[in-house]
Amino acid sequence: MQAVGIVVEYNPFHNGHAYHLKQAKKVAQADVVIAVMSGTFLQRGEPAMVDKWTRTQMALAGGVDIVIELPYVYSTAPATDFAKGAISLLSAVGCEAFAFGSEDGSIQPFLNTFELINNHRTEYNALIKDSLKTGASYPKSLYYAYEQLSQKFPASYIDLAQPNNILGFHYLEAAKALDLPIQPLTIPRITAGYHDALQEDAPIASATGIRKALATSHSLQSVQHVVPETSFQYLANWQKKYCTFASWEAFWPLLRFTIMRHTPTELSRYAEVTEGIENAILKAAKISQSFSSFMEKIKSKRYTWTRLQRMLTHIYTGFTKEQLQSFQAPSFVRLLGMSAVGQAYLGQHKKHIELPLISRVAATNDAMLAIDIRAAELYNLSIEQGSTDYILPKDFQTPPIRF
Amino acid sequence: MQAVGIVVEYNPFHNGHAYHLKQAKKVAQADVVIAVMSGTFLQRGEPAMVDKWTRTQMALAGGVDIVIELPYVYSTAPATDFAKGAISLLSAVGCEAFAFGSEDGSIQPFLNTFELINNHRTEYNALIKDSLKTGASYPKSLYYAYEQLSQKFPASYIDLAQPNNILGFHYLEAAKALDLPIQPLTIPRITAGYHDALQEDAPIASATGIRKALATSHSLQSVQHVVPETSFQYLANWQKKYCTFASWEAFWPLLRFTIMRHTPTELSRYAEVTEGIENAILKAAKISQSFSSFMEKIKSKRYTWTRLQRMLTHIYTGFTKEQLQSFQAPSFVRLLGMSAVGQAYLGQHKKHIELPLISRVAATNDAMLAIDIRAAELYNLSIEQGSTDYILPKDFQTPPIRF
Repeated sequence: MQAVGIVVEYNPFHNGHAYHLKQAKKVAQADVVIAVMSGTFLQRGEPAMVDKWTRTQMALAGGVDIVIELPYVYSTAPATDFAKGAISLLSAVGCEAFAFGSEDGSIQPFLNTFELINNHRTEYNALIKDSLKTGASYPKSLYYAYEQLSQKFPASYIDLAQPNNILGFHYLEAAKALDLPIQPLTIPRITAGYHDALQEDAPIASATGIRKALATSHSLQSVQHVVPETSFQYLANWQKKYCTFASWEAFWPLLRFTIMRHTPTELSRYAEVTEGIENAILKAAKISQSFSSFMEKIKSKRYTWTRLQRMLTHIYTGFTKEQLQSFQAPSFVRLLGMSAVGQAYLGQHKKHIELPLISRVAATNDAMLAIDIRAAELYNLSIEQGSTDYILPKDFQTPPIRF
Repeated sequence: MQAVGIVVEYNPFHNGHAYHLKQAKKVAQADVVIAVMSGTFLQRGEPAMVDKWTRTQMALAGGVDIVIELPYVYSTAPATDFAKGAISLLSAVGCEAFAFGSEDGSIQPFLNTFELINNHRTEYNALIKDSLKTGASYPKSLYYAYEQLSQKFPASYIDLAQPNNILGFHYLEAAKALDLPIQPLTIPRITAGYHDALQEDAPIASATGIRKALATSHSLQSVQHVVPETSFQYLANWQKKYCTFASWEAFWPLLRFTIMRHTPTELSRYAEVTEGIENAILKAAKISQSFSSFMEKIKSKRYTWTRLQRMLTHIYTGFTKEQLQSFQAPSFVRLLGMSAVGQAYLGQHKKHIELPLISRVAATNDAMLAIDIRAAELYNLSIEQGSTDYILPKDFQTPPIRF
């Protein structure tokens, strides 16, 4: 049996995801689709709108065969490390290829871009440095350096202004950098754009669009036509039990308390909190009754919104710079769920999986895993505050879902 | 003008307190009563049921002339340090005497007890050590040592099984140990006992009894006959705005989150958290939906309830062992409120007050004061979670109350 890997957040699982995974299976001529999925907190520095177990159920119902967890250390990291964690896990479970969505759907421009940057690394870094000196943000400076370099050596390159291209590029770069025996494939995306508002007559929308529609209308019906029926049911059950979907706005009381419990020096111990931003964070938290008014106060040209949210994620979960530096590579593969086909695949490949395959967390002692467990526990506390009758499954005790 | 000092928590201010302060004034032949009052968290390791400003208003309405704050560092400390902080502040503001309530109302047995322990310190400490070795708690061991010593040197001593006697003894001991020019006085208490249930026909009850009655009946009417009318009105206004009185039960969501955000090693950094209790605290928090069920799980013979609650106070506020050790003596006198008479007294004595008299906190930079401000901010967040329409006055910006 052959497996193709995909890197996902499924926040939530929608029709575009269902399309992507079918295409991935087809293009890779694979029997099995393995998704490495962020657990509780996502790359954009946000809590996932529903917990990892609900998102695993949506994934399995939507056609994924095996869901493994991308540990917190990687799921909340800048794109380069996010990609390294994800691709090395897909390789570790025996995927011969991984497939990502991109705007133009052809792999050659990605390879050209990789070669361009890899062959001119010194010049590229110097250009980034020049741009940073002008006060531009890190992502903007990367983009500037890339533009300069690609004009100098013309060829067919990818457009790095497209978020999906950037992610795809980092996956490919990770596979190359780690010298992994896994082949990159790309599939053309079929949405109109990344941040678009939902169209009433279109069955495909971005996850961002879906979350925005839910935040605005508070009605699940408004997104029913862009998610599979199974996703819709899982989301409806969640909403019935917990009243709200996870968001920083809903998490604000606990985040605010946590920020205000610290001195600036203590805040600066957390991952990604650098260069004096801790003072602004503390000052703003004291006078902000909502997350949105807080972000209004701390946003600046210096940091992207995503970067600020990742800092807040680490403050919320108590994840320090010291902890971040202590991890070099994923130390386990955590199984969140599998179909019958997925189970057969694992039965066949078990012996060849390079890392411990964890399905019973309670029996495992691993520092990286302990961070996932704590992040999930703290995520659950914010959700459970909105619900008097229900508590979420304890991450520590939950076995993989069999579908 | 002459001043008498009293040490109070006013949680809440009741008829017994009104009686005590009148008697103190009379016995000391004073013109002015100065109360040093715990701010936000109390010696028993609990949040005060209403904030420091509401309690200051009750105190001024009840006849106190000046209210100054006992800083967090002392208000949440074991009795010896609590007493040192309180008595040194009363001495600093020029009180010639301080008066405390006791069971038998005569000062000589207190002086005898002090002499007994002071003159046989080595033997006393050895007896305590012996008792601790048998596994007895520290308070129990103190009591054992005292019993042994007082039988060996018979005289008229106080009964150290009475909580008010213990506190009074520590006040007297603090004045002697710090060699302060302030005279100890005692006034007989007129309640039947410390933990007694409220009697329908008795106008005097303990603060503990009042809080218990409120926790049971949730009706302010049940305590109307044991508090002054002014206290009743302040409590009624509070309840109308914030729905609940502060308690660990109400603070549990934020306390629980804070505990679970830490590793055991990190928890052990906080003041009074010692000897492996951090593991039990963390384990119990994970599975406890309420404060009472949490305490059921961590209570043991080794620690008194009060000691456990003080640990939790320090975890909630983020007050570390390192911080605790950095303070030697109160570094300021913070004015919370004053009557016209109190204002006249301060006008007369200002020049002789040994520490900076702080009425505008925003203009002050002091490490000990910063801890008070933070404790108040974090206290407020738990209260405000229960109220959608009201926020509490910011401690940082609140000027002293003039009554």
